[in-house]
Amino acid sequence: MDLLIRNIENHFSLTPEEIQLISTFWDIKSLKRNEYLLRNDQVCRYDAFVLSGALKLFFINQDTGKEEIVSFAIRDWWASDLKSFHEQTPSDMNIQAIKPTSVAVITKSGFEDLLKTIPKLERYFRMILQSNVAAWTYRTYLRNALDAEQRYIHFLKRYPQINREIPQYLIASYLGMSAEMLSKIRARFAR
Amino acid sequence: MDLLIRNIENHFSLTPEEIQLISTFWDIKSLKRNEYLLRNDQVCRYDAFVLSGALKLFFINQDTGKEEIVSFAIRDWWASDLKSFHEQTPSDMNIQAIKPTSVAVITKSGFEDLLKTIPKLERYFRMILQSNVAAWTYRTYLRNALDAEQRYIHFLKRYPQINREIPQYLIASYLGMSAEMLSKIRARFAR
Repeated sequence: MDLLIRNIENHFSLTPEEIQLISTFWDIKSLKRNEYLLRNDQVCRYDAFVLSGALKLFFINQDTGKEEIVSFAIRDWWASDLKSFHEQTPSDMNIQAIKPTSVAVITKSGFEDLLKTIPKLERYFRMILQSNVAAWTYRTYLRNALDAEQRYIHFLKRYPQINREIPQYLIASYLGMSAEMLSKIRARFAR
Repeated sequence: MDLLIRNIENHFSLTPEEIQLISTFWDIKSLKRNEYLLRNDQVCRYDAFVLSGALKLFFINQDTGKEEIVSFAIRDWWASDLKSFHEQTPSDMNIQAIKPTSVAVITKSGFEDLLKTIPKLERYFRMILQSNVAAWTYRTYLRNALDAEQRYIHFLKRYPQINREIPQYLIASYLGMSAEMLSKIRARFAR
């Protein structure tokens, strides 16, 4: 939980009492490699903060049956399907552990209670969501405005830690190219 | 401004004094058809709320030079490049009026002052951003998980008002298909 508290304290300071209180709203969940935090057609039960390990968020392409990577969540990042979580409706998305992963999770009712108890956290979540929207915009820019090599160069620059922690074939899917294409681009870089 | 106040009041009630105060933070801006609210390489000066008309948000594909539609903003919706707005860095995005459009705009410093003055608006913006993240997730689902016809069916169901207000060739770009493909799908529906 310390990592989550530090993440909040990047935005504003908390009193020892607030830190104590905040911690009571979260549970720690351990996921084995390939274990799911969310499966499509289920309601997203948790908003999750990654303490260690890595998650992939993906859809299944209904035509090809293939995974389409939406995003990754590594240490110190949030992961959930917010629409499903807040509306408590079935999700189209899957969230699965790429490696053994530990997450701090909060339920929808826990989340509402937390914000009632400590209203100043509204500001924290507003700022997290702002970054999230920015990341989505950037993702669309990568996918729609750049060629494959430029996508990879931009991605490397912006997310060096994801590049280190996530298998290359998943990064290829995230960037909208085949694993072969990514491997060719990497080979050109290595020269 | 009434429309923006009503939008906030969908989430919680405001006192007459708060309504008066909130209004002082925004300016009204009129855009002619094809006028830009933001051009790429400029800093996004405003967070904007559409009072009437319609905006398109798009990138230029650096390979083809073509517009890649990111999203639309019609009456009662927000539009900005939040990363550029909050970090005051140059944007990759363009925001342009599709028809004569009126927007309520707020600057970055105005936005910070507003939240200092009326902290309970943190909650409003948190909820707006939540919907925004949900819309982005859905957009990725449309683009990556469904075939062209399914994309159009889902889109129609979720955004009937956009379908009425936005030219079809722009909707085709948003859905990641050619205008000819969309027109074929629509013809099949009309039978």
